[in-house]
Amino acid sequence: MAIRVSIVGASGYGGGELARLLAVHPEVQLVHLTAETKKDEEMSVLFPNLAGFVEGKTVEADATRLAADSDVVFLSLPSGVAMKLAPELLKEDAKVIDLSPDFRLKAPHLYDRWYKMAHASPEYLDEAVYGLPETHRVAIRTARLVANPGCYPAAAVIALAPLLQSGKVTRTGIIVDAKSGVSGAGRGLSMGTHFSEVNENVKAYNVTTHRHTPEIEQELSEVAGESITVTFTPHLIPMTRGILVTAYVPLAQKTSTADLMAVYREAYSSEPFVRIVTEGLPQTKATLGSNFCDVTVRVDERAGLAISIAAIDNLVKGASGCAIQNMNLMFGLPEETGLNVPGLYP
Amino acid sequence: MAIRVSIVGASGYGGGELARLLAVHPEVQLVHLTAETKKDEEMSVLFPNLAGFVEGKTVEADATRLAADSDVVFLSLPSGVAMKLAPELLKEDAKVIDLSPDFRLKAPHLYDRWYKMAHASPEYLDEAVYGLPETHRVAIRTARLVANPGCYPAAAVIALAPLLQSGKVTRTGIIVDAKSGVSGAGRGLSMGTHFSEVNENVKAYNVTTHRHTPEIEQELSEVAGESITVTFTPHLIPMTRGILVTAYVPLAQKTSTADLMAVYREAYSSEPFVRIVTEGLPQTKATLGSNFCDVTVRVDERAGLAISIAAIDNLVKGASGCAIQNMNLMFGLPEETGLNVPGLYP
Amino acid sequence: MAIRVSIVGASGYGGGELARLLAVHPEVQLVHLTAETKKDEEMSVLFPNLAGFVEGKTVEADATRLAADSDVVFLSLPSGVAMKLAPELLKEDAKVIDLSPDFRLKAPHLYDRWYKMAHASPEYLDEAVYGLPETHRVAIRTARLVANPGCYPAAAVIALAPLLQSGKVTRTGIIVDAKSGVSGAGRGLSMGTHFSEVNENVKAYNVTTHRHTPEIEQELSEVAGESITVTFTPHLIPMTRGILVTAYVPLAQKTSTADLMAVYREAYSSEPFVRIVTEGLPQTKATLGSNFCDVTVRVDERAGLAISIAAIDNLVKGASGCAIQNMNLMFGLPEETGLNVPGLYP
Amino acid sequence: MAIRVSIVGASGYGGGELARLLAVHPEVQLVHLTAETKKDEEMSVLFPNLAGFVEGKTVEADATRLAADSDVVFLSLPSGVAMKLAPELLKEDAKVIDLSPDFRLKAPHLYDRWYKMAHASPEYLDEAVYGLPETHRVAIRTARLVANPGCYPAAAVIALAPLLQSGKVTRTGIIVDAKSGVSGAGRGLSMGTHFSEVNENVKAYNVTTHRHTPEIEQELSEVAGESITVTFTPHLIPMTRGILVTAYVPLAQKTSTADLMAVYREAYSSEPFVRIVTEGLPQTKATLGSNFCDVTVRVDERAGLAISIAAIDNLVKGASGCAIQNMNLMFGLPEETGLNVPGLYP
Repeated sequence: MAIRVSIVGASGYGGGELARLLAVHPEVQLVHLTAETKKDEEMSVLFPNLAGFVEGKTVEADATRLAADSDVVFLSLPSGVAMKLAPELLKEDAKVIDLSPDFRLKAPHLYDRWYKMAHASPEYLDEAVYGLPETHRVAIRTARLVANPGCYPAAAVIALAPLLQSGKVTRTGIIVDAKSGVSGAGRGLSMGTHFSEVNENVKAYNVTTHRHTPEIEQELSEVAGESITVTFTPHLIPMTRGILVTAYVPLAQKTSTADLMAVYREAYSSEPFVRIVTEGLPQTKATLGSNFCDVTVRVDERAGLAISIAAIDNLVKGASGCAIQNMNLMFGLPEETGLNVPGLYP
Repeated sequence: MAIRVSIVGASGYGGGELARLLAVHPEVQLVHLTAETKKDEEMSVLFPNLAGFVEGKTVEADATRLAADSDVVFLSLPSGVAMKLAPELLKEDAKVIDLSPDFRLKAPHLYDRWYKMAHASPEYLDEAVYGLPETHRVAIRTARLVANPGCYPAAAVIALAPLLQSGKVTRTGIIVDAKSGVSGAGRGLSMGTHFSEVNENVKAYNVTTHRHTPEIEQELSEVAGESITVTFTPHLIPMTRGILVTAYVPLAQKTSTADLMAVYREAYSSEPFVRIVTEGLPQTKATLGSNFCDVTVRVDERAGLAISIAAIDNLVKGASGCAIQNMNLMFGLPEETGLNVPGLYP
Repeated sequence: MAIRVSIVGASGYGGGELARLLAVHPEVQLVHLTAETKKDEEMSVLFPNLAGFVEGKTVEADATRLAADSDVVFLSLPSGVAMKLAPELLKEDAKVIDLSPDFRLKAPHLYDRWYKMAHASPEYLDEAVYGLPETHRVAIRTARLVANPGCYPAAAVIALAPLLQSGKVTRTGIIVDAKSGVSGAGRGLSMGTHFSEVNENVKAYNVTTHRHTPEIEQELSEVAGESITVTFTPHLIPMTRGILVTAYVPLAQKTSTADLMAVYREAYSSEPFVRIVTEGLPQTKATLGSNFCDVTVRVDERAGLAISIAAIDNLVKGASGCAIQNMNLMFGLPEETGLNVPGLYP
Repeated sequence: MAIRVSIVGASGYGGGELARLLAVHPEVQLVHLTAETKKDEEMSVLFPNLAGFVEGKTVEADATRLAADSDVVFLSLPSGVAMKLAPELLKEDAKVIDLSPDFRLKAPHLYDRWYKMAHASPEYLDEAVYGLPETHRVAIRTARLVANPGCYPAAAVIALAPLLQSGKVTRTGIIVDAKSGVSGAGRGLSMGTHFSEVNENVKAYNVTTHRHTPEIEQELSEVAGESITVTFTPHLIPMTRGILVTAYVPLAQKTSTADLMAVYREAYSSEPFVRIVTEGLPQTKATLGSNFCDVTVRVDERAGLAISIAAIDNLVKGASGCAIQNMNLMFGLPEETGLNVPGLYP
């Protein structure tokens, strides 16, 4: 029997990508697709790729109805909204996979500091499971509330976790330099996502202040078993999809690229969606439209530094694909169900 | 039992796209993947998106071995090569789907004129079936040799066929103005596909001399029941995938957009991969990575002209996806098998 | 003594491009730069390329002050605004170069039909000179009010004028198929100019309804000496700057590419900013950032059709550069002053 | 009297950009433009933007003739060629500005190590002046042989020099993460610059092995007065022009963004082509087509790190523009001559 699934916030890119993937997921029945400002619009007009796959219009979100009709509700909302809606859904026994940042951080004060808002439901932060299967698979299986990772943290944690677990690197001086396509900024209009301003251009943004910083730190600290501080610099580049993370970590001992590659190969040997790149280097195009994260590592022997590089499609492994991977885990399905397709190249 | 499939010319974009789609086709077993200049290379290095899906190396093409091991062989080769290889394969009872232009034109002299070469196997031109299911479905089902359409003709014929059948337009003065992404030029290196020359640029090319002209004319003539001449102007625009055809045809009688839309709706009511766009206009992004052709039509009442517009992904509906649709037909499978997924958006 | 120049609407792309070009114009002193929604902002923040060239903030537009302090005022405004402001400036003896459509059409009823607004100052339409130097140079020299051409009409008229004057083509069945970069849509935010929607995409827009249609028709009719109707289809392609016009006109008599090339060469032999392309075909990149229009023509002998192609930078020859060319004419300067630089390539 | 200038290697992007800028330089007369594989071709066909500005064909390079006819010769050649040609030109009293890496490194063994070739003229390495005016202005004025900086080093050194001079940072653990447009790879064809492979893609390349590493280290070591090692990671992003350098340096003492901004402001207060960005962050688009380097600096107080960011157009300040700035210095002209124009935006 199909899992009944609803999407709250179906008119944005995260919601549209959920609809694209769930429309052909063999174990899923799409129930409600809600939107706020774009309600009562045809999904196939909002997303012309979905014509013939997702028919019907977006509706207004109604927690009671959503919970009654759905086994699981995906929330694809701006920060601050899911923290109010998720508790209502959970109380009525729907499972929730939240793609917003609202349940990712364990310490409520981090929302004050980085999101400039008091958390509305801090009592759920402990229960929420951080939805990166590569580091929290067991807990995800039995979770009611999954906090799906941010796009940058998904790539950064997969890039860095084996290094930090290896004992071969220091835990200070970690730098995460990331390059993102523009779809990561969402479908909302802004001068920073206006075509003519972004095309043929590259710039850093939110230097030292990006909200994914504490999320990366929290997850790397858990992996490392001690408190980690990172410098995180995101950059906007002229493409639609894709994140490339280049991470730098000082070595704690002499080691080689071959040694570290072996560490990565072992760490991810059973992961269905992590591929170790051995010839060439990761590139976002190899993951386009797919749920894969391509990773590699190099040693800069002259500088005594490890460099790990990870590539994802920010809308898939960095958002909606990972969310569906989580759903599969929560409902006892094979983890790859509906996701096991290669990306587009070129 | 799976269909045994080989791909000749697997290192180019057409071949890679066949591999991408066939790797997850539920009724197919990939047997041999051949390449000429890039033989003995890992497919997952040639196409990093295929890592985990298509393992093994490209091999040299050997007609006997290909035919012995394959139920069908896809040929993704430059013009002039398939015309020699296909007969060898057919003689050994393999079916052939040729993505090159070598068997598309019925009149041998057109190869002399437009391709500047004498056809090596003109005796097969009659037997070859032009592989556009929207106009040749019945013949494709029983074909041994299918000539898969060129990317521009696929879009142009789908855009124009209902108009020409309707009797509402003239059969002269037809203009096909097309805009293509760069992948249509293939993976071979040239100054015309060098990033810095193409990016932030648009130009027409092969004005009045493009080789797809006689192919469009042949197919439209068959649809119209009389000889059709078209003016065809392709343009190169800075994107990777996608063709948009804007076609202009003088009206033979007064008609309206609503009338012509009804004509198109009826013409394509049973087509699994043609979608009539009723809100907005076709855009290539709605078809990205998918086998769909999105079409619409408008009447310019002031000028007495019909304008039809079609969008496809040139590597899918314009090449490899259409070829697999043909394979499904030739082997009695449901036509959508392995192809029924929405495109990426955005 | 320098010409005192003000720019009304300096925060948009047209205004910013005027500022870029006028900042290094040897005979110009920039006086006031005004903006409506973005007033009191540093020009060097609105346009970071202008840091070190244009200092100071945008101010509110005040007609009296503008006229008192300026010899000429450039209006870079949305349609409907300049038609009110220009008369005020003219009354106080400033010359006006209007980059909006407000004074381009001679027949007031065309504003009702195409712009859905009654013209506020129809008494100025006769006086206004259409500012395409290639067709109206003499009148521009003595004009008080110049209506600077739309970006598409600038390219279309330069592409087609010699053909229509030659007597070798019919005056019916003219098709103008144009491809534009996104900056032509301005700096205002919209879903249609959101990076992720435009990148890796092409679509037609405003099919049969684009407002530049009557402008093209008016100017071609004047050139031809009889009333001309055109079918005009603009397309949006994923680049920032550039327009390529591909125009189709049925031949009235047998002629050749060589004949028509001679017609173009003669027609534009004295034009400082029209270049006849004899090797290869016009491409927008060759005009990037420059005031040049690159043009060529071909005969499709099979179809009995002429194809003319023109490329411009829509913000320069299609807007601000042409406006400065007009200013040079109006103030008796050499026409190329401040504009005689090659485009960027690549 | 005009400076007589020749360009060796005029068919590549560096040579074309020299021609673009020199064609409108008020004190220059272009004499010979040479090309190897593309000799006897019209410059206006090789670079269609130059039609009307640079007429005539490329010729074969002849050292004697070049030296006899030129006051200065620009060499825009692959590594290994200028090291043979420059001595011949110098012996015949022409000045040489070499855009290749052949005279940038002072230690001959670095050519063995990083360029895998023995230097053919090591006796000239001492005399050659590294042509970054911001750090070597005085020596450039009297140089016969200027080694024009690599594109990455130009941006990296401008980004980091004030930090290293300030005494506020450590001299170890320096990371230079750079993002480049594709024109930096030149006009030669390769799979890595094929449009369909690069578009909608980002990847690192030459990790730990890029040849600009020793050049950055040499120049920073000179600035710092002690030996500096850097980790340098270049990335290729889907745009034509522009380099953004994001550099990370651990702090040696507590400091603030305001303190470091003051350091930069003072360091570059007299530089004609370095702009300190105080609002927003540097972006390559603000420098497009211009000779400016836009720079800023931030402190990450949590991590104890300085982040400096620099943006340039790799073909101008990163190559040909800087070379002309050097020529101006060598010939006693005002440094900005022919270069003082703003970039294109958008």
